[in-house]
Amino acid sequence: MGGGIGAFIGDAHRRASRICNDFQLIGGVFDVDYEKSKEFARQEGVSLNRCYATLDEFVSGELALPLGERIEAVSIVTPNFLHYAFARKLIENGFHVICEKPMTTTVEEAEELKALVEKHKVSFCLTHTYTGYPMVRQMKELIKDGVLGDVQRVDAQYYQGWINSIIHGTESRITGVWRLDPKTAGVSSCMGDIGVHAFNLIEYTTGLEVKRVLSDLSPVKEDVQLDLDGTVLLRFDDRLKGVIRASQVAAGEENNLTIAVYGSKASLKWEQENPNYLYLLSDTEPTKIYKPAHGYNSGFAEASQVMPAGHPEGIYEAFGNLYKGIAKAIRGEELFEGEFPTVQDGVRGMKFIHGVVQSDKDNNCWVDL
Amino acid sequence: MGGGIGAFIGDAHRRASRICNDFQLIGGVFDVDYEKSKEFARQEGVSLNRCYATLDEFVSGELALPLGERIEAVSIVTPNFLHYAFARKLIENGFHVICEKPMTTTVEEAEELKALVEKHKVSFCLTHTYTGYPMVRQMKELIKDGVLGDVQRVDAQYYQGWINSIIHGTESRITGVWRLDPKTAGVSSCMGDIGVHAFNLIEYTTGLEVKRVLSDLSPVKEDVQLDLDGTVLLRFDDRLKGVIRASQVAAGEENNLTIAVYGSKASLKWEQENPNYLYLLSDTEPTKIYKPAHGYNSGFAEASQVMPAGHPEGIYEAFGNLYKGIAKAIRGEELFEGEFPTVQDGVRGMKFIHGVVQSDKDNNCWVDL
Amino acid sequence: MGGGIGAFIGDAHRRASRICNDFQLIGGVFDVDYEKSKEFARQEGVSLNRCYATLDEFVSGELALPLGERIEAVSIVTPNFLHYAFARKLIENGFHVICEKPMTTTVEEAEELKALVEKHKVSFCLTHTYTGYPMVRQMKELIKDGVLGDVQRVDAQYYQGWINSIIHGTESRITGVWRLDPKTAGVSSCMGDIGVHAFNLIEYTTGLEVKRVLSDLSPVKEDVQLDLDGTVLLRFDDRLKGVIRASQVAAGEENNLTIAVYGSKASLKWEQENPNYLYLLSDTEPTKIYKPAHGYNSGFAEASQVMPAGHPEGIYEAFGNLYKGIAKAIRGEELFEGEFPTVQDGVRGMKFIHGVVQSDKDNNCWVDL
Amino acid sequence: MGGGIGAFIGDAHRRASRICNDFQLIGGVFDVDYEKSKEFARQEGVSLNRCYATLDEFVSGELALPLGERIEAVSIVTPNFLHYAFARKLIENGFHVICEKPMTTTVEEAEELKALVEKHKVSFCLTHTYTGYPMVRQMKELIKDGVLGDVQRVDAQYYQGWINSIIHGTESRITGVWRLDPKTAGVSSCMGDIGVHAFNLIEYTTGLEVKRVLSDLSPVKEDVQLDLDGTVLLRFDDRLKGVIRASQVAAGEENNLTIAVYGSKASLKWEQENPNYLYLLSDTEPTKIYKPAHGYNSGFAEASQVMPAGHPEGIYEAFGNLYKGIAKAIRGEELFEGEFPTVQDGVRGMKFIHGVVQSDKDNNCWVDL
Repeated sequence: MGGGIGAFIGDAHRRASRICNDFQLIGGVFDVDYEKSKEFARQEGVSLNRCYATLDEFVSGELALPLGERIEAVSIVTPNFLHYAFARKLIENGFHVICEKPMTTTVEEAEELKALVEKHKVSFCLTHTYTGYPMVRQMKELIKDGVLGDVQRVDAQYYQGWINSIIHGTESRITGVWRLDPKTAGVSSCMGDIGVHAFNLIEYTTGLEVKRVLSDLSPVKEDVQLDLDGTVLLRFDDRLKGVIRASQVAAGEENNLTIAVYGSKASLKWEQENPNYLYLLSDTEPTKIYKPAHGYNSGFAEASQVMPAGHPEGIYEAFGNLYKGIAKAIRGEELFEGEFPTVQDGVRGMKFIHGVVQSDKDNNCWVDL
Repeated sequence: MGGGIGAFIGDAHRRASRICNDFQLIGGVFDVDYEKSKEFARQEGVSLNRCYATLDEFVSGELALPLGERIEAVSIVTPNFLHYAFARKLIENGFHVICEKPMTTTVEEAEELKALVEKHKVSFCLTHTYTGYPMVRQMKELIKDGVLGDVQRVDAQYYQGWINSIIHGTESRITGVWRLDPKTAGVSSCMGDIGVHAFNLIEYTTGLEVKRVLSDLSPVKEDVQLDLDGTVLLRFDDRLKGVIRASQVAAGEENNLTIAVYGSKASLKWEQENPNYLYLLSDTEPTKIYKPAHGYNSGFAEASQVMPAGHPEGIYEAFGNLYKGIAKAIRGEELFEGEFPTVQDGVRGMKFIHGVVQSDKDNNCWVDL
Repeated sequence: MGGGIGAFIGDAHRRASRICNDFQLIGGVFDVDYEKSKEFARQEGVSLNRCYATLDEFVSGELALPLGERIEAVSIVTPNFLHYAFARKLIENGFHVICEKPMTTTVEEAEELKALVEKHKVSFCLTHTYTGYPMVRQMKELIKDGVLGDVQRVDAQYYQGWINSIIHGTESRITGVWRLDPKTAGVSSCMGDIGVHAFNLIEYTTGLEVKRVLSDLSPVKEDVQLDLDGTVLLRFDDRLKGVIRASQVAAGEENNLTIAVYGSKASLKWEQENPNYLYLLSDTEPTKIYKPAHGYNSGFAEASQVMPAGHPEGIYEAFGNLYKGIAKAIRGEELFEGEFPTVQDGVRGMKFIHGVVQSDKDNNCWVDL
Repeated sequence: MGGGIGAFIGDAHRRASRICNDFQLIGGVFDVDYEKSKEFARQEGVSLNRCYATLDEFVSGELALPLGERIEAVSIVTPNFLHYAFARKLIENGFHVICEKPMTTTVEEAEELKALVEKHKVSFCLTHTYTGYPMVRQMKELIKDGVLGDVQRVDAQYYQGWINSIIHGTESRITGVWRLDPKTAGVSSCMGDIGVHAFNLIEYTTGLEVKRVLSDLSPVKEDVQLDLDGTVLLRFDDRLKGVIRASQVAAGEENNLTIAVYGSKASLKWEQENPNYLYLLSDTEPTKIYKPAHGYNSGFAEASQVMPAGHPEGIYEAFGNLYKGIAKAIRGEELFEGEFPTVQDGVRGMKFIHGVVQSDKDNNCWVDL
C-alpha cells in the first residue's frame, strides 16, 4: 500500500525485502492516482492484474484467488494517518502486515489493532528498523544473560539536525514540511518521529517497561507548532531511572541515535552511526568491543549478519533482518525473541508519544504510560 | 593549606603549579598533625620556619615578613568543610587564594566570600580544572565569535563509575567513603562533586546563565543517603533548554565528561577523555576537528598548549593553565577572559548544587537559581 | 556461472544485483552438479528451461532466443581457475560479464580478455567492490579536482587475520584451505587475494600508475607454500613513492583495508571498516570529515548513497553500486568515470600480483609492472 | 647544558623533571652566550655561582664542591653535534647524564659512550620520550608475558607534516631549517629525527632485535638534500619481518606515531596521539581496550600514571616518567625493566640511522645492523 514512484520509504522497504531474499513484489495499491500506480507496476515488472486502484479492490481481488496464489503479506507505507484504517482492513481479511511507524495516531487505535492481530492470528511487523542491527540484538542477548547485573540507569539519545535548516529558512519552506504541521504529523514531531525509536530501543534491549515519563519539549522557534527538541525523564519499576534526549534541530547531527545501559556489574553502549561496534564496560576489566560475525556472539546476533567480520553491513541489512523475521513467522519457523517489532511495540510507542506530550503540556509533571 | 603526605589533590596542585612555572612552594600548614606537616616540609625542601602549625600562625607569621618576602598565594586543599573558614581568613588578610571545589557548603558562604574577594581586591581561583584545556577554551572563543549562531540546546554529561564497586561491596566499605556521608560530603554526592563541573562547563563555554533547574536524582541503592546519579533539566532565558546527566555509578565509565552545544548555524562537541579534539558540526559542511597548537585557533587556545601539534598535553597541563592564569592576575598582566575560574563560579556552583537537591526533594519541580 | 547452493560469493552477487534494482536472475549454470543446479533454480524461482547443465548449453540456448528475451549479462562466480575460460567464451558470444577477481591466472590471459572485450564491445565489470563506496568515490573526485596538490606519498594497508587460526590449527585444516595451495590459489595468497585490492584502490583513487615494485613476502610458517604476509614498495613516475602492506595472519584484524594519499597541499585517509568517513588533513586548517549524502560531495559520491546522511550503508550497497554501474553501461547511459572496475583493472591486477611474486623470489629486487 | 632562554626542548626537560618531583635545577651552562646564560639563571632562581660559562668550568666548579652538594645529573639539550663531546666529558667526570637524541652523529661515538658509561658506572638516559607512556609500558609487559604468542609481524609508522609547508614555501625558509642541512642534521632528516623513534619503540615493546634493514628514502623535492620520507623493511631473526614508515611531509599529520605488533595468538596496537588507549586484538574474543590506572594493568604501567582512570596524562608526564626512572637509578632503587632508555638504545639508534641511509644509497639492498 503506497510506496510508488518517488516514495522514499517504499523504496527502502523494497530493497530490504529483496536483500532478505524471502519476498517477491506481486501486487498492491502503489499510489492514490491509479495511472501512476500502474506506471510504477510496469517499472517493477508487476502484473497489472495485481495492481489495484483501491484497498477494497485489492482485498476482494486477492481473496478471490486460490490460497496458494494469494498475496500473503502487505507493506503499509502510506502517509501516517492512513496506517490505522489500512492495517485494520488487511488484518481483518487475514493478510500479514508490515507497517511503517507511527502505527496509528492514537493509543486507542493501536490497542484495537493489537486485539485484531491476536484475533485474526496474523503476523504484524512494525518497522523499528534499528532493532535489526546485529549488535543491538547482541546487546539484548547480553542483558538477558545477566552480563550487566541489575540495570541501574538507561540513557538514550536521538539527535538529528535536518529540520534546523528548514526552520531557519524561508516561511514558505516551513509550512511545506508536513512534519511541522499538526494536521499531518499528529501531536508530536520530534518525539513522534524519532524519540519513539529511542524509547523502543530501550524497551527492546533491556526487556524492561517504562512506567512513567516527565518531559520538557521545545518547538525551538516561535512560529513552530510542534516539538522539535526535548528531554524525557523515565521511571521504570522501583528505583530505576533513565533519560531520553532527542532533537531534530541539532545542527550538523545526522542520525545520531545512541543507547547506554548501565548495570550493577557492567554497562553496554551502542551508536547507530557506527552500528557494528558494541562496547562492554566494566569496573575491573578492559572495555570490550563486540563486532558482528564472530563466534563469541549470541546465535541471534550471528544470524543477523551474512558477510564475514569486517565487512560492514548497514541500515538496509538491518531492515532486511526485520523482513526476514516476519517471513520466518509467516512460514511458522522458530524465531529468536525479538526478531521483528510487533503490534505490541506499536501500542507502547503510541503510549510514549501521547505521554510525553501530556507531561509537557501539564508543566512537566509525571505521566503514567 | 593541607595537601601534605599522602594527599592526592595536594599533589596535583603542586604538580600543576610546577608545570606552569610561576609558583614556588615556600610554606604552609600541610597537615593538622604538626609533626607530619614538618616531615612533609622536609621532603619538599620547604624551610621549617615557614611550616606553620595553624592557619592563624601562618597568617601572623607571614604578615610579619616584609612584603617582598611574604607568601603571595595560598592553595586550600583541606577537607571541604574547612574551605570557607580558611578562605575567609586568608582573603581578609590579603592573600591570593587558589581553592579546591566545592568552594563552600552553602550559597550564603559562597556569596560572602565573593564580597570579601571584591572588598580586599585579591585574586581567587576555584579549580574547575577542565576549563584549562585548550580545546575548551577554543570552544568558548568560537561561541563568543558567533560561529554557532544562537544557542538552541545544551547537553552535558558527567559519567563516572568508581562508586559502583563501592556500593555493591561490603557494608563497611560504604560507610568508609566520606562522599556517601552527608556529614562530610554535604547535601549532594554526584551533583556536588561532578554535576557541578558539567554545570560550570556549560556556563563557561556558552557565556549563558542557567535560570532554573528541575532535577531527578537517585541514591541508586537503598542504603545510600545521597544522590549518586541524576538528570537535571535546564532552563536558560527565553526558549533555550538544556540537560545535564551525571552518575558516579555508571559501571565502567572512567571520567566521561562531555559537552555538546547546538546552535542555529553550527554545533560544538567536546569530551574530556579525549581533550585535544573539538568537533564543529554544521548542516552544510564537513565536520571539522580542531586540535591544539594550530594557527587556526584563537590566541587564548594557543596560549594554553606548549608542545607542538600532536604531542598530547593532558589534565596536569590544564590544571597548570589555571595556575598560570592566577599568576598572571597576581602580577597584574592582561588576561584572556576566562583564564581561571573565579569566586563567582563558586557562587554559581553552590546555587546549582542546592537548587538541584531542592528540586529533587520537591518532587521534581522547577527551582530558580 | 556458479554461485549455487552454499556458495558465499554467489549469494553476495545476487544481493548486490537486487539492491541496485537493475537486474533479474533469469538463468545460468549454478553448479557443476546439474541436479544441484536445478535445485537451486527452484529455490530462486528460476525457470528450469533457463537452468543449463554447462556453459556451452547456456550459450547456445540463450543465443537461440530472440534478442529481447536473451540473458544480457552473466556473473562469473566460479573457482578462480575457471574465470578465464568462462569469460572468454561469454565475451566472444556477446554477453556482458561481471567477473569475480582474480580475473585470470596469468597476465597474458588478462590481456587477451581485454582485447576480446574491446573487439566484441561488451561491458566487463571486475568486482573490486571497495571502489563502490561513496567515500572512496569522493576521494577519487577530490584528488582529481586537485585538492591534494601533487601526490607525494601513498600508503595502503590490507590486514586480515582469518588465516592465522588456520595455520596454527591442525595439519588437516591447513591442507583443506584452498587458498594455501598453489594448485588452486595460483602464485600468491595474500597479495593475490587482498594485496591486489589495495593496489587497485591506489590506482583508482589517485589516477596514477604504479611503474615498479619491490616486495618482501612471507609464508610466516614453515609448512606454508604461499605468501600470507608482505610489504611492497611502490615506485610511480619520477619521485613519487608508496607502500602496500598486507597480511592474512594479522591476528584479530578483520578486514582492515586502509588508504592514505599525501599531497603537497593536503591529504586524504579512508578505512574500509568505517567506510562512511573520509578524512581531509591539511597543515593549516582543521581536519575535515566527509560523509555520504551531503551537498558538499561530488555528484558521483552523492549518486552512490540512497539513504539520508547518518544512515550507514555498507558493503552490499557498495557492491550494488558496481552492478548499477555496469547496468548503466549496458543501457548506454552516461557514466561517471570509475563507476565500475573494468577489464583493464584486471590486467593491472595480474601485473601487480606477478610482479610482487617475482620481486620476492629475486631477493627483493625492483620489478617493472 | 643548553636549554636557556627560548630553547624549546630545554623547557620540556625542565617541566618533565619538575613533574616527576625528583629533580631540582641547581646549575649549568644554559647558553653559549654567558650573559644570556646568567639572565636565564636569574629567571629560574638559579644561584649565579652555579651558572657556569663553559662545560670545563662547570666540571671543575662542581667537582670542587663536597659530594653532597655537587650536582648529580646533567641534561644535555644542546644542538646535536655537541651531544657526544659533552656527554663524554660529563661521564668521564662521574656525572649522570640525561641526553637528548640523537645521542651522537656516528655509530663509533655511540659505542664509545656506551663503553664509558659502563666504565664509569654512571646512569645515562636517552630521551626516547614515548617509552614513558603507561600504555607503551603495558604493551611491553603484555608481550613479555607471552600474551601475543610468537611475534609474526611488526608495523610501525611515524608521520608528521610540519616540514611540508617549509619545502613548498620560499627558498630562504628552506635553507633556514637546520634539519634539512646535512651539516647540522647529519646523514638523515626523517629517519634520524623520527624514524629512529619508531625503531626504538619496536625494539622496546617487543624485546626483539632488528638484524637487517632495506630502505627506500626520498627527499620528496629536488632541492632537498636529505630524506624527508621513507619506508624501511625490517628483518628480525628467522622468519620475522616488519616495516617502518615515516614522513615529515605528510601534509596535515601532526605527530602520528603508531605501532602494531601481530602475534600468533593475539595482537597489540597503540597510537601516540591517543596514548591512553591500547588495543588487544584476537581471533576469538572481542577486542580489548587497556587504559591507564586500572588494576588489570602490570605494576610497571600502573606506576606510570598518577591520576585516576579517565584523567588523561600526556607527553610531559611520559617524559617525567623517564626522569623518574633515572632518578630511581641514581638513588639505587629497584627499577622496572625499561624504566628509561639507556646508552644502548642510543647505539642501536645510530646503527639504524646509518643502516637505512646506507641501504638507500646502495639501491635498496639489505644492510646488517
